[in-house]
Amino acid sequence: MTTPPPIDAALQPIYDAHDGGKLSIGSKRPIRDAADLSLVYTPGVAEVSRRLAEYPSEAPKYLSSPRTVAVITDGTAVLGLGDIGPVASLPVMEGKSCLFTEFSGLASFPIALDTTDVDEFVETVVRMAPSFGAINLEDISAPRCFEIEDRLRERLDIPVMHDDQHGTAIVVTAAMRNARRLTGREDGSLKVVISGAGAAGIACAKMLYAHGVADILMLDSRGIIGDERDDLTPVKSELLGWTNRSGIVGGIAEALRDADVFVGLSGGTIAEEVVATMAPEAIIFGLSNPTPEIHPEVAARYASVVATGRSDFPNQINNVLAFPGVFLGALDAGATTITEEMKLAAADALSDVIVDELRPDLIIPSPFDPRVVPAVSDAVRQAWLNR
Amino acid sequence: MTTPPPIDAALQPIYDAHDGGKLSIGSKRPIRDAADLSLVYTPGVAEVSRRLAEYPSEAPKYLSSPRTVAVITDGTAVLGLGDIGPVASLPVMEGKSCLFTEFSGLASFPIALDTTDVDEFVETVVRMAPSFGAINLEDISAPRCFEIEDRLRERLDIPVMHDDQHGTAIVVTAAMRNARRLTGREDGSLKVVISGAGAAGIACAKMLYAHGVADILMLDSRGIIGDERDDLTPVKSELLGWTNRSGIVGGIAEALRDADVFVGLSGGTIAEEVVATMAPEAIIFGLSNPTPEIHPEVAARYASVVATGRSDFPNQINNVLAFPGVFLGALDAGATTITEEMKLAAADALSDVIVDELRPDLIIPSPFDPRVVPAVSDAVRQAWLNR
Repeated sequence: MTTPPPIDAALQPIYDAHDGGKLSIGSKRPIRDAADLSLVYTPGVAEVSRRLAEYPSEAPKYLSSPRTVAVITDGTAVLGLGDIGPVASLPVMEGKSCLFTEFSGLASFPIALDTTDVDEFVETVVRMAPSFGAINLEDISAPRCFEIEDRLRERLDIPVMHDDQHGTAIVVTAAMRNARRLTGREDGSLKVVISGAGAAGIACAKMLYAHGVADILMLDSRGIIGDERDDLTPVKSELLGWTNRSGIVGGIAEALRDADVFVGLSGGTIAEEVVATMAPEAIIFGLSNPTPEIHPEVAARYASVVATGRSDFPNQINNVLAFPGVFLGALDAGATTITEEMKLAAADALSDVIVDELRPDLIIPSPFDPRVVPAVSDAVRQAWLNR
Repeated sequence: MTTPPPIDAALQPIYDAHDGGKLSIGSKRPIRDAADLSLVYTPGVAEVSRRLAEYPSEAPKYLSSPRTVAVITDGTAVLGLGDIGPVASLPVMEGKSCLFTEFSGLASFPIALDTTDVDEFVETVVRMAPSFGAINLEDISAPRCFEIEDRLRERLDIPVMHDDQHGTAIVVTAAMRNARRLTGREDGSLKVVISGAGAAGIACAKMLYAHGVADILMLDSRGIIGDERDDLTPVKSELLGWTNRSGIVGGIAEALRDADVFVGLSGGTIAEEVVATMAPEAIIFGLSNPTPEIHPEVAARYASVVATGRSDFPNQINNVLAFPGVFLGALDAGATTITEEMKLAAADALSDVIVDELRPDLIIPSPFDPRVVPAVSDAVRQAWLNR
């Protein structure tokens, strides 16, 4: 076994924050004597189990599990690190569970699965589902993530959401709505270019389309996705019906010419002379971390609104703006799934939080804005109840 | 859907103790600003994941999972309630996780699986195992529980223990050792009768045998287990080689005649005239709940030491005396399994806690005796380190 190298002093605060793990689990009430024991455990607990066996609809009253969100991964697409496997993915999953508990007040528990087989993943999650109120899928590689989510949504009657897809899409759609408001444009008139046809890119495209954006161009690592391509996966082929309606052929240079909006979810860097060909008053979201596809300083020369995925620039597109409120609203409503309407309602509510404060450097609230989670969760709850 | 009936006022305290569930999950550190976020989650967390991908042996330093015990069931043998399914089993599993956190300081999370198939159970647990430091199997029906535990122990390199078997066996063995000490007898001279050949009964028999008890008779619902029986399951057939060496045939009346020790794990009631045929100064453990096989007042007429499973009589045989210390010791030692030596060490350490205080009504410590968990966990840790 190789001895791990010492930790760089500059990174020590990160490791300190992870010392001994980040998640805490405890009993809500202390167990100090036989009387406590007989209430929390036997013989008292048998009474509650007997009741739930007869009346399972009472489970939410007496269990923690219905308010517990599982954060489930197979470690195949962890942040920008790729397929690092279940154990190495766990710092991220524990962190995500911490965000759930801190931002939504829901309980959350991370599960990293030791399988990369889609069938096995699905069956495993279906079997453990009684222990949870909802499932947040995380950092699963495309296109497997699409099938896994689809099949779990079909099999389970609790909310299931792949956050890398829909959390990102909700926040991008909310930010886009406010960028349009600021620049006085309508969804229907926008020419949008999305670089990256993975989980997040495809979900953003679908949600923007559902929101009314009609002209969307998508690019993968080989260029614009269009009819002439003979190398498309089934998932990308499905984009042909409703993206790239003008049949544009080429790469990012052809795509960005006269585009109103750029959404980068691909990594790589776009040359400034290409950025310069965008339409006036462009909207540029370079969301790759740590290096945006278009650096915000470059973007600012051509765009009227700029957003990134980084916390050290204005307008951070951060999933933590969406998932706590989405799951909280879904569970508060007793929802058995998360519908498109709930996600659109989350995006609109998120953008409305700061509608009276909009500035080019404030098109999306801070994750620490206390209005965010209540606004998103209320909207999601209402969308389910009004379905 | 049937409307659940109102809750009996006398039972309300139990339901109050379960209100909203019993388990609490939170972030060890608050996430109050972007700096916190960047340490607990992106971008900081990527640094830790990258390190664990390269040096997985560092996982215990930076994750909660290696100190988290999964409490896993399929809900097929829950307390005395039988096969009530995963959801109705969860009050018990959450309670067990609360006992883990309160008594051992370890984290614990309950998982109730929606399958009764042995293969599916095993595969599911193997796939989720990276998320846990150890596995406590709970309330799984026999004989499935034996195969599930055997296969998981073989497949996983973390401690796995079916508590209904081994937790019970450890505490019974500890109490028996002190009862012997009090009555001045040796393991080798004892004639022991165990009523109940399920998970707990078989595990107790094996452990007492390993501890030196040579003369053991076991009974199932059809009577004494012996060579003449043609209705034995494979698991019960394995008992023939080393129990009932005298070839006794019959039921509880034949079994108890001149027996030194009775261990009841079967339910049902044994007639007083049968109890009266036991050897003088008998040791009677009627462990069924809520009704011991021999009522303690009846037992006291014939026995010098009496124990039950109930908290309202002296000498309560309670698994919570064993499992917190066993798992804590195993995890402290970095054990990859739980050996027979570790379980025997736990039993001896548990009995030794009160060796200077022994009385007929004090052969086993209280679960709230603060010496118990340190004594058991130290012994288990040492047994692993000295293996």
